[in-house]
Amino acid sequence: MSLVDEMAKFTVSEAVGKIGENHRRRAIEHILDTLGVGLAGNTDPIASSLLTYTERLGERGGYTLLGNAVSASLLQAAFVNGILCHALDYDDSSWRLIGHPSAVVLPSVMATAESMDAGGRELVTAYLIGTEVSCKIGAAAEPELYQAGWHATGVVGVLGAAAGAGYLLGLSLDQMIHALGIAASSASGLRQNFGSMTKPFHAGIAARNGVNAAYLAQCGFTSNPEALEGKTGFFANFANKQPVLKESMGEPFDLLQPGFFVKPYPSCAATHTAIDAMLSLVKEYGCQADQIESIYAGCGPVGPIMLVHNRPLQGTEGKFSMPFVLAAAVADGEVGLDTFTDDKVNDPVIRALMEKVEFGIDEQYRTRSVEEAPALIRVKLKDGRVLERSKQMADGSPEHPLSYEALIGKYRDCAGRVLSPDRVERSLEKIVFLDSLPRISSLTTELRPG
Amino acid sequence: MSLVDEMAKFTVSEAVGKIGENHRRRAIEHILDTLGVGLAGNTDPIASSLLTYTERLGERGGYTLLGNAVSASLLQAAFVNGILCHALDYDDSSWRLIGHPSAVVLPSVMATAESMDAGGRELVTAYLIGTEVSCKIGAAAEPELYQAGWHATGVVGVLGAAAGAGYLLGLSLDQMIHALGIAASSASGLRQNFGSMTKPFHAGIAARNGVNAAYLAQCGFTSNPEALEGKTGFFANFANKQPVLKESMGEPFDLLQPGFFVKPYPSCAATHTAIDAMLSLVKEYGCQADQIESIYAGCGPVGPIMLVHNRPLQGTEGKFSMPFVLAAAVADGEVGLDTFTDDKVNDPVIRALMEKVEFGIDEQYRTRSVEEAPALIRVKLKDGRVLERSKQMADGSPEHPLSYEALIGKYRDCAGRVLSPDRVERSLEKIVFLDSLPRISSLTTELRPG
Repeated sequence: MSLVDEMAKFTVSEAVGKIGENHRRRAIEHILDTLGVGLAGNTDPIASSLLTYTERLGERGGYTLLGNAVSASLLQAAFVNGILCHALDYDDSSWRLIGHPSAVVLPSVMATAESMDAGGRELVTAYLIGTEVSCKIGAAAEPELYQAGWHATGVVGVLGAAAGAGYLLGLSLDQMIHALGIAASSASGLRQNFGSMTKPFHAGIAARNGVNAAYLAQCGFTSNPEALEGKTGFFANFANKQPVLKESMGEPFDLLQPGFFVKPYPSCAATHTAIDAMLSLVKEYGCQADQIESIYAGCGPVGPIMLVHNRPLQGTEGKFSMPFVLAAAVADGEVGLDTFTDDKVNDPVIRALMEKVEFGIDEQYRTRSVEEAPALIRVKLKDGRVLERSKQMADGSPEHPLSYEALIGKYRDCAGRVLSPDRVERSLEKIVFLDSLPRISSLTTELRPG
Repeated sequence: MSLVDEMAKFTVSEAVGKIGENHRRRAIEHILDTLGVGLAGNTDPIASSLLTYTERLGERGGYTLLGNAVSASLLQAAFVNGILCHALDYDDSSWRLIGHPSAVVLPSVMATAESMDAGGRELVTAYLIGTEVSCKIGAAAEPELYQAGWHATGVVGVLGAAAGAGYLLGLSLDQMIHALGIAASSASGLRQNFGSMTKPFHAGIAARNGVNAAYLAQCGFTSNPEALEGKTGFFANFANKQPVLKESMGEPFDLLQPGFFVKPYPSCAATHTAIDAMLSLVKEYGCQADQIESIYAGCGPVGPIMLVHNRPLQGTEGKFSMPFVLAAAVADGEVGLDTFTDDKVNDPVIRALMEKVEFGIDEQYRTRSVEEAPALIRVKLKDGRVLERSKQMADGSPEHPLSYEALIGKYRDCAGRVLSPDRVERSLEKIVFLDSLPRISSLTTELRPG
């Protein structure tokens, strides 16, 4: 059976039987996390740009834009929500996809679910299907796809978005094969655009194009059944290889095994183990900025590739700066949504501390894979003491999952920046019990300012 | 100066001074041709699929869908019109782009012009800018981009669409650089989807994404200034090379030199010289189907690559079938919109003739480039006579441009299949005098059924 046949068959018929309550519980945690960071995305400058643009294009309609009183057309809602969910780089990620699964799939299935006012259970199922398709295709295409310069979040994500939307639309097997082929010819996203608003744009356009492909297929539009695996198809063009599925679809779901990374800090994944180690030292020894003589941060090979801003000038650059995140961790004793502001990046105490950070690959970690991103932090104090801590896997990774309380706390912190306290609590309750929500509209109403 | 800087500077400031009346006259001919084939695109089954989809998505708005009474949102109009213009494979093409420039750029600039009810002269300027950007980027990326499996119509076209729309929106230099970078991360289109509805889809999605990128940039959205030329940028990812601009922008405009190919027949470009030669024999000798013993069609290297349907079963396959187009040329004495029907492909006289066609690369043409696509036709008659004709460049190519009368005739034939005779004539007059049309709405009104 070809890969596209297997994807399509899984999506339209086989997936439902493989989904248990454990899948649903985990899915709801990720939906909660993604909606929270999408709401908080409205605190980023990108949000006002998106609202002006929606207005100028006249793309109004009845579909929810997270955290906004105005609403938009179906495709526009998928697009804007995708960008909002990835705007802060605070959304979940998958090392097998080498990208962000939920920020693409959830906006796609949410807009589609709104079109039929589907129940929460159907939404959860569609989310599980879409992220599973993204991750299994990602695993079959990576690491070549990423190495060739593509951003899997958009390039692979559009296929998962099409699968999730197509499931909700009730596509036939043939229609689903066409939807995946149309989506393959909509796949896009250059890594060169990292560090600009076009990085989160990739999540949005993949969400929009995924919904678009599913609707086109439902209306009789055709693609080539070899669009994924053919000589000039998706895998050959984006990853220069023939795909091999490492496991059968849903056995296990990538969401459960190996699982996704849920970020406790709104910064690049490659900063996380170092922040963990530094916060743990700060907490244990109570060390203050003015006591520190130097900080050594030794990381794995992925560090210097991803963390390109040694002397950031803007909050957004701070997300990709090891000196900044460590200096902020010391100065504030925490790293969160309030950390990555222009003011904080230019705070004299923090800038002085940044000058004391030495950052590079540590010899013991040189051969490590990207999935690990270990970190060793060594703080020399002016009184001669040396404090040291190393960490192999970050908090929020599948090996060290955030506690349920931490997840709820993150949602409250994120959503509370946009919604009233009442709406934060009501939306939280509806998401937690999403599986038994009769109509998605009763949730989406709570995701707008009252 | 980097390529993206040169593109942006050309688009926002330098192009206008390089455009003379000769450019405008030629542009209007291509706009006429593209609108005609776009209107005729409604006779293809793809059109009803697109209308159903527009309806289901609820993407209504005030923007013209060629040949349709219903109208759509701005992005949707650019999308649907792009597909309609390329649906029949009857729209113009550029050998340097290895793709179809007008079917992407015109829908993009037309929708944008409608949003401000711009004048015809501005539309013509935007069309010239957009197609020039597409073709110069195409020339810098080809033939590697096509060989790697990408369809330049969509992949490169989106940059031209963004430039044309961005010109109309009055983007600043910086905004235009961002628009091109956003467009670069929207570029898509797999050659593997040739032969399905997703081929014309590439024109539509590039038109839509081009407009989208221009509007986003106008609203403050950013991309990386290295999105085209960087290590993981457009040229590296799609063509695996650093681009070299062969000429300065607009010196000359590709539209004038080498010029685009305007199709006299709605079939693959690789069939055209052979059809020319066959029709010329049929006309000179009046040979009938029942007099023919065999037909030899010798072509250049591109023939067998593009013409994959030796025994087509559907009208759309007939567009990519040398035996079919030659048999139809003999049986009907002409090749046109009425040729590529399922009935005609299954007509017993034509099928019997197809069995008599031998088709392959002729030794004398083996080393020819794709721009030439020469053909030798040799017809053996049952009475022993051998009729032979060769042709180097097709009618409609820049070397043998269609007469103005033929262009007008093609428009009337195409538009007359969808519009009333009155609207055909009124729209024709408005396009011919497009350069002095005060408001684009007075034309678009005529492009819908009355």
